[in-house]
Parts: sequence; C-alpha cells; structure tokens
Amino acid sequence: MADDGAWQKLAHLTDRIGPRLSGSRNLERAIEWAEAALRADGHDNVHREPVMVPHWVRGAEFGAIVAPIDRELAVLGLGGTVATPRRGVTAEVVVVDDFEQLARLGADRVRGKIVLFNKKMPATDPDHGSGYDEAVPYRTRGPVEAAKLGAVAALVRSVTTRSLRSPHTGATRYEDGVRKIPAVAVSTEDADLIARLAAAGERVVVRVRTSGRYLPDAKSANVIAELPGRERPEEIVLIGAHIDSWDVGQGAHDDGTGCAIVMQALTVLRRLGLRPRRTIRVVLFTNEENGLRGARQYAADHASEMANHVAAIESDTGGFKPKGFEVQGGPQALAQAADLVALLDPIGAGRAVKGFGGADLIPLALAGVPALGLWVDGRTYFDIHHTHADTLDKVDPTHLKMNVAAVATMAYALAEMPERFGAADRERAPAGR
Amino acid sequence: MADDGAWQKLAHLTDRIGPRLSGSRNLERAIEWAEAALRADGHDNVHREPVMVPHWVRGAEFGAIVAPIDRELAVLGLGGTVATPRRGVTAEVVVVDDFEQLARLGADRVRGKIVLFNKKMPATDPDHGSGYDEAVPYRTRGPVEAAKLGAVAALVRSVTTRSLRSPHTGATRYEDGVRKIPAVAVSTEDADLIARLAAAGERVVVRVRTSGRYLPDAKSANVIAELPGRERPEEIVLIGAHIDSWDVGQGAHDDGTGCAIVMQALTVLRRLGLRPRRTIRVVLFTNEENGLRGARQYAADHASEMANHVAAIESDTGGFKPKGFEVQGGPQALAQAADLVALLDPIGAGRAVKGFGGADLIPLALAGVPALGLWVDGRTYFDIHHTHADTLDKVDPTHLKMNVAAVATMAYALAEMPERFGAADRERAPAGR
Repeated sequence: MADDGAWQKLAHLTDRIGPRLSGSRNLERAIEWAEAALRADGHDNVHREPVMVPHWVRGAEFGAIVAPIDRELAVLGLGGTVATPRRGVTAEVVVVDDFEQLARLGADRVRGKIVLFNKKMPATDPDHGSGYDEAVPYRTRGPVEAAKLGAVAALVRSVTTRSLRSPHTGATRYEDGVRKIPAVAVSTEDADLIARLAAAGERVVVRVRTSGRYLPDAKSANVIAELPGRERPEEIVLIGAHIDSWDVGQGAHDDGTGCAIVMQALTVLRRLGLRPRRTIRVVLFTNEENGLRGARQYAADHASEMANHVAAIESDTGGFKPKGFEVQGGPQALAQAADLVALLDPIGAGRAVKGFGGADLIPLALAGVPALGLWVDGRTYFDIHHTHADTLDKVDPTHLKMNVAAVATMAYALAEMPERFGAADRERAPAGR
Repeated sequence: MADDGAWQKLAHLTDRIGPRLSGSRNLERAIEWAEAALRADGHDNVHREPVMVPHWVRGAEFGAIVAPIDRELAVLGLGGTVATPRRGVTAEVVVVDDFEQLARLGADRVRGKIVLFNKKMPATDPDHGSGYDEAVPYRTRGPVEAAKLGAVAALVRSVTTRSLRSPHTGATRYEDGVRKIPAVAVSTEDADLIARLAAAGERVVVRVRTSGRYLPDAKSANVIAELPGRERPEEIVLIGAHIDSWDVGQGAHDDGTGCAIVMQALTVLRRLGLRPRRTIRVVLFTNEENGLRGARQYAADHASEMANHVAAIESDTGGFKPKGFEVQGGPQALAQAADLVALLDPIGAGRAVKGFGGADLIPLALAGVPALGLWVDGRTYFDIHHTHADTLDKVDPTHLKMNVAAVATMAYALAEMPERFGAADRERAPAGR
C-alpha cells in the first residue's frame, strides 16, 4: 500500500496534461504519455491500436435570461451540440419536468420556443445507488424530443443533486430526420430560477449561444500493455479504464483515477514477481465519453480472441474508497466473484453485487465476457461529474492505493483460477449470443 | 408559521432584483422596493436616510497558468482591487501558506512576483464555529503584505472548505503608502494546482487581469420602519440586516434572508396587533460588504438617541435553521437573553451564547448597546458566501419562517420587558466608553 505510483501517474495525467476530449491535442499527449509510462514500468506487448474518433469542439458559449429580468446563466454546451447563429437564439422558455409534460404541451405550445428540461436528479439511495440513470435521459434525448415538437433550442438542468452553480456537460444525441437544435446544460440554480419565474406566470425569454461543431474525425488509439500468463497466455483478464475525458476540469475521477488504477495494478503485480496462469491485459480505451469508439474498435480488433477473454474489469465510477465489484455476468460468475472478492474484506472492499461492468465493456459483455465494475463509495461522484470541478484535489491518495490493491488482487485471482471464471455461464449462453 | 411573506420578499429581492453591490442600480432598486414593501405592510415612520457609499465595479477578469502548463484559472477579483494593465500582469508565482512563510521569503524572493496566499480555511468545529476568521486575514491583508515586499499581484485562495471550483470574492484593503497591487481570489482547486506544481519544483507563471476600479461615491440609503412603542416610544429595539450584497450570485443568504426576516418580523408583530412597551425599529443597512458606511452613518445620524437603544439584533449569518442568539453585551444582558430566548425552545432556537452581534451593529456595540446576532446552523454558509452560488434555492422556506418567529419573539420580548434590557451592564460601563 506504500507505493504512490498511481498518484504520480494521476497527477501527471491531470495536472500536466489536463482535460482530454476526443480529437484534442491533450488526448494525443495523454496516449503518448500512457504508452511511455507502461513501457517504463517494464510491461510486455505495450502498443497502441488506432481508432478514429469524433472531434467535437466547444467554442464560445453564453446564456442569459433577457426578460423579465437580465441575468447571466451558468451554461455548458452539451457534448455534440450544434452551434447557434452567431448572435445566438433568443426565445421564450417553456419549462417541463419530464417527457410526459412535454408531450402534454404538444407542438402548438413548443414550436419556436426554448424547452428547459428541469428534471431533478433524485437523491442517492444507499441501497439503489444514484439517481443518475433517471435524470440522464433528459440530457441524451431531451433535445431531440424538444426538436420533434418544433423547439428552437433545449436547456437541460445539470444532472446533479449538489451544485455551486456548476453546469455539467455530457453527451447528447441527435436523430436522423429530426432538426438538430442547440443543446445546453444550465446549472441547477439557473434552472430553478427560470422555473420560479415561469411558475410566477412570467414570460421568460432566454438568449443562448453556442458555437459547438464537429471537425473531421481524428486519429486516436487504445493503449495496451500486458503481464503474460505463465500457463494459458492466450486467455485474458482485461483491466480497463478510459483515457479520454470531457474538455472541462481535469478528468480526475472520470476517468483519470481509472487509468492510474489499472496501470498501477499491473505494475504492482509485475514488481511482486507474480506471474498468473493467464495474461492480464491493461486496456486504456479512447473516446468513452462521446462515442465509445475505442470500446467498439477493441471488440472488432480482438474479435478472434473474444472467446478467450475470461473476464474484464473496468474502473470508471471514480477513484473513491472501494466497496467491492459490480458483476455483470451469469450466476456462476456472480458466485465466484463473491468468493474471490472476499480477499478484499480486510480493506473493506469485499462485496460483490450484481450490476454494471462499465461502458467500455459493453461490447465484451454482449459477447458473453463477464464484466466487473470496480465498485466505490461514489456519493460525491455526480457532484463533480463532467464539470470544471473534476480535479485532482478531489482524489484521496489512500483511496487510490486501495483501488490499486483491489484491482490487482481481483485481476490476479481471476487470472490464476484453475478453472476458467464463469465457465458454466458460458456453456449456458455461448459467446456471440 | 404559515405566513410566507418573508419568502415573497426574499424571492423579489433575489430573483427580481438580484445582486446589489454598493453603487449599483440594483442596490438602488432594492432600496426603493424595500421602502415600498415596508410601507405596504403598514409600518410607521418608513423612510430612507441618505448614505454616500463606495462605488467599485468589477469589470472584466481573467486568470491563467501560462507555464509550465496552460490552464485557465477560476478567478474573482477581490472587492476593491485595482486594475492590472490592459494585457494583465504576467509573473512567476510564489506560494505561501501564511504570513510567516511570506516574511521568511523576504523581499528578495517576492519582488516582481505574484504571491499566492494558500491558507486553507480550517474545517468548521461544532463547538467553535467556522474557520472563517482564521483564513479571512489573507483576503483582507494579504495583498498589502505582499505589496510591501514588492509583489506585483496577489492571488488569494478562496475562503471556503468546500468548492466546486467556485471562487469567493470579498473585501480587501489597501494601505496608504503601500503600492496597490491587483488582488484576485482563485478557487481552492486552482490554488491547489498551483501549489502542487510549485512543490514539484516548477517555475509557475501566471497571467492575471482585472479591471476593477472605483467610480465616485454614490448616493444610497439606510431604510427604516417602526412599530412604535406604547409606553416608551423613545426607547428602541433595533432589528437589522444589510440590503447590499456582493455583485455575484443573488445575495440570498448574505443577506437577503436577513432583510426578509427582519422586515417580516415587524409585519408579523403588527398583524398580531401587538404593541410592545418600546419601539421596534427595522434598519436595513446599506454598504455592509465593502465599507460599513451605512452602519457608521446610522450611528452618526442617531447619536443623540444612541443611549435610548435598548438592544439591537442583526441577522447576517444566513437564513438557516435558527439555534438561538449570540449575545455581545455584558453579563446581565447575557443572562437575560438566556431567559428570553428560552421562549424559542419549542422551535429548537432556545440557546444564548456569548458572541458577535453583527458587522452593522459594531458602532452600536461600541456605544454600549447590547448586540444580538441571530444564530443559525451555518454549516454550509461559507460554501456559498460571496459566490455565484448564493442563490434562493439554497434557502429553506421553513427555516426562513422559523427565523422570522425567532426575531419577532426576541424583539417583542426585549421591547416589552418592564426593566430595560441589560440596564445593570450600562451602569457598569456607560455608553460612549
């Protein structure tokens, strides 16, 4: 636990390189650095695998209430938003709490307006996790649903339960055949202000300007390194994270910590002189945030060895105090994971629960690979997620070390098992189902 | 408790008028509105008393690390800062944790540099309150101390323990005979980043630009209203708050809640048909934030009746759940306040502690008037204090009502006492000491 290699890596990635949106020079620098760092740690088969990624750039942004009061808004264009005309879009706002309210308004009352999706993210429930999944559809689908009814722009309440007037960006999606309208996040404070004015019967007029645009797809890469297996080197336990981030903040918890954790986990095992039965492979995926192109490219490039992926671990929910692993797999994988993770009881990370492995593991999970998500105490994760505040100071060095221990231990255990992890599940539902 | 008049007032002040820095048109609008609102509630002797106030304007601001990395900083000029040249000031940063470290560096290592005061605000101690008083001297005196050693600008770590990359403004003070250097707050995240880079041995160069400047003093006013006393109308229980705010956010907890609370407290007493022995006087002070000119003018204008001020209450620590009152007075006042405040036990606000009455009450306290500060559960106050995030959504309508009840009850009790509050203290230490 004394090794601060993960912190050193994370500090470089966040402080020296910074935010790493797909297509940016910073992401390229991060990939170059990661490859060099993995090489410096003495790993095998260190290389990058090319991926073409979307290249969206934010540009200048502005938002303000212009009637019945003048008040600047704290805005962040959603990732992928189109630009407004240079002078912006100025229109009356209609406020809806959810898609049902929008539907009830109908095209007559939405046409020509700016729709504010004011869906409040539910508080985190200790048993069922955050309310992220309930709120995030308004960010991803809200602009399209508003456009279908003739809206000229969409404002989306930032997906968070705590704010210090902090707008949260994140990907939005357009739909073929539906007009692309500008899509902008506003802080919860500003969403509340607009909603209060509207509820008081005021005609609220907002001006919003974005200059977000896509440049041609850019060259990028997944970065790979291995600790080769001693008996079944062709069988793989993947430990992954994503090296890209949004273009605000430092991408510290999302997902700098993940990168530092999986890189250092491999290094720790190597330095301990451990050589498990199977190969442990680090994959730093590119473009998780706005495309999943890295994950898809990995699955395509490695289709022929997909059946040899015994398990895949991702760390992408922040580098907070580890609690255990979420297991996305069959009943045997869940039962075996529960046994293995008990190794982490001494550091309080001994729980296995059924859950989600991670976005970059979706193509693997679809191919039948058991996916394990590093599970952490993420109560504050969505306070800083996709904001200017996702910075290194939010990371606890001790928690980071605990996560390295958790991933290293679990990867080693999975790679060392005499029988293949979750083999019985595979027989019930073969890969490629 | 059912009356939502305080909330209506606060909503108007924050949502419709907004931030109210001295000299601004918004402050003028707030004063006009407050006078009209007090009149509409039927109070006696509603009027304004002229005060000339400083008129500082922020203008454009910018900060960035330019070496060894390029990174924009989240900055807010400190209130009163002078401007940099148009292109800003660019210089190496020296980081100090406190004044002692600055002194040890000495002029040789400070001259021509930008000093970052990186004093961390101590966590709130439930017994001893916040660490604000320990950190704030770096905001008020840091720039002068840096200038004395030849610094060309000062950066000050925002005075807060929690941040989402939120810079905190607040007043700074220059000193005659010491060069006025630009003084800018940076977010705690950015202070940490600069400190980490410097600790790694890097030469950190920052560019900072402010265009803060003073315009000629502006006309402003304290606003006054009364519920006249039935037996001793010349004796006064003052209930006060300040109507100005900083120029960011909405001035909700600082001190919109205070204004709404004392205004509504008077209204509640009037509507109940209560007419206490002495006069209860609402005073909305102007220019608390950057000058205390309102408080000083009030003391000067009312010097002849100062001896008739029986007690003064201020609400200026946020409109959170009330706990009781801080008492700045002699032993009799403290003992009597403890008896009176027991009336508020049913709402959990029954405690009296020795403490500070409020900044606007300083001239009164110096003249021997017992000063009582409404004491609230302010654990989150300094998260939002002097930031863009001091907005209405942070106020709980129920807590606001409880504060109205607390101030109304205490003011009535003080005004109704047969004997004059703290009379024995006065005899020991006559007014004007």
